[in-house]
Amino acid sequence: MSTTRVVALSGGIGGAKLALGLYRVLVPGALMVVANTGDDFDHLGLRICPDVDTLLYTLAGLANPELGWGRRDETWTCMRTLETYGGETWFRLGDADLALHLERTRRLRAGESLSEIIADIAQRLEVHAAIVPMSEDPLRTRVLTAAGELAFQDYFVRRRCEPRVRALRFEGEERARPSARAQAALSDTSLEAIVVCPSNPYLSIDPMLAVRGMRALLENAAAPVVAVTPLVGGAAIKGPTAKIMAELGLTPSAITVAQHYRGLIDGFVLDERDAALAASIGEPVHVTDTVMTSLAARERLAHEVLQFAATLRASGAGAP
Amino acid sequence: MSTTRVVALSGGIGGAKLALGLYRVLVPGALMVVANTGDDFDHLGLRICPDVDTLLYTLAGLANPELGWGRRDETWTCMRTLETYGGETWFRLGDADLALHLERTRRLRAGESLSEIIADIAQRLEVHAAIVPMSEDPLRTRVLTAAGELAFQDYFVRRRCEPRVRALRFEGEERARPSARAQAALSDTSLEAIVVCPSNPYLSIDPMLAVRGMRALLENAAAPVVAVTPLVGGAAIKGPTAKIMAELGLTPSAITVAQHYRGLIDGFVLDERDAALAASIGEPVHVTDTVMTSLAARERLAHEVLQFAATLRASGAGAP
Repeated sequence: MSTTRVVALSGGIGGAKLALGLYRVLVPGALMVVANTGDDFDHLGLRICPDVDTLLYTLAGLANPELGWGRRDETWTCMRTLETYGGETWFRLGDADLALHLERTRRLRAGESLSEIIADIAQRLEVHAAIVPMSEDPLRTRVLTAAGELAFQDYFVRRRCEPRVRALRFEGEERARPSARAQAALSDTSLEAIVVCPSNPYLSIDPMLAVRGMRALLENAAAPVVAVTPLVGGAAIKGPTAKIMAELGLTPSAITVAQHYRGLIDGFVLDERDAALAASIGEPVHVTDTVMTSLAARERLAHEVLQFAATLRASGAGAP
Repeated sequence: MSTTRVVALSGGIGGAKLALGLYRVLVPGALMVVANTGDDFDHLGLRICPDVDTLLYTLAGLANPELGWGRRDETWTCMRTLETYGGETWFRLGDADLALHLERTRRLRAGESLSEIIADIAQRLEVHAAIVPMSEDPLRTRVLTAAGELAFQDYFVRRRCEPRVRALRFEGEERARPSARAQAALSDTSLEAIVVCPSNPYLSIDPMLAVRGMRALLENAAAPVVAVTPLVGGAAIKGPTAKIMAELGLTPSAITVAQHYRGLIDGFVLDERDAALAASIGEPVHVTDTVMTSLAARERLAHEVLQFAATLRASGAGAP
């Protein structure tokens, strides 16, 4: 029996901040974070799942506060040595981080599912939330740019998001199905809220919506779907959201993001700096400070998002 | 054109000591070390080549003097973290050491040969000797014990050589061929000496002799073959040589080792503590201190071995 009361959809760093807030304000076991795996890739023979791992490390209290990715108290001996061999070091893997990739890759080869592996490791890290990949199947984000079509990490890390984006496509979307645990939680009639974290809508949330059946699960869920804006004053707190929107010919604004989620969401959380846009969002809106500069700010925002969802639920939103 | 003047056959730690001595007394480029790869295995998805790596690290001046294996100034963050995931940590891989396994595995998958990869890494580590795997083909030492048949590292590392050895077999021996570089060097008529290092004859040298055609290459080589005893006073300086000999029903003595190499070698280097055995060796013998407790001792022994080979060559030994 699932004890999940809230499902959050999240990419990496930005989304993980709110996921941590939700984790801390909910009772242990009540949160499921469905993670984007469109960024996953094979590197140095290892399966790397950047968003899953950022969520794991963040919820386990192991995230690196300076880098924003990877683990705290990390050492870099392996990468430094790999450099002396002329190896591939553009994707920085810390020594402790490597252990996760080695162990995951070994278990995947032995036939375990990504969900099983992540669940076991989360338990060992004493994370009392379910971190669930959107799918067990490969769905890989490809970035069509002025410099050609690039694999996601090639675009995002190796080329630092510099090439101009023309379009995105999700390789494998016709075959990828929602993971069983995500499916079960989203179908549960006692679910209280679904939160679309302030992740990049195009790079982090769209891959999840491209999984066949995921959109229907969200649309038919008993719980209201609330999205939190990733843009404040037309700019992203971190990452290339605004840059990519401009390159795709979109106005980098919370309005555009809300429009992007139309038909999917029941409410939108807008930053107080954008309060003037509230009437143009086209959804029920909750206006607040969405910039999570402290742990307390994450918890407060999480509280408000859950309150907002409760209000929407009371008013009948969410029911298909 | 090969500049190899001396070929050494070596396993790991014990053999690497003499290999280092030879490396230091010969002109740069004159030494080729043919390494046992019967201990190689796949672990955590990585190809590990313990003897090749011990030779690389030793000749590069990077070997760990305390452990006797692995690299100096090593960190252990990855293994420590892997332990928290319940991962396989019985085979200790340091963080810097991991870089070599990652890079080798990546290049092997990309289609490079082990010889090419090791040659490139040796060059980057400024090793001016050729370190050459005995074969590009898999030949795996299997240990038949009272506890069943075990993969080599399972026997050697995980079970610390505790199970009683009944026999050894070399999986893949019917298909493994000598590596091209070893073959070329051993066929070169200007080769001056072939040194069988004081490695375990059964675990480290026999796998090389099991490679199809290797024994003939050694027997037909223009250079004399000189073996250095791995036993002093019936005991090994390090490792389970004497224990295994006893378990195989053999008398742990330099005489037994010399008999084991009969037909292959032209001379035997006996330890001075065993001088009384000289007449029973059945080969031309050079008696000296074979315990290499210092770098100077390694160089001195290397000098003496090469001198001994020169004497044998002058007397016509080595010519098929």
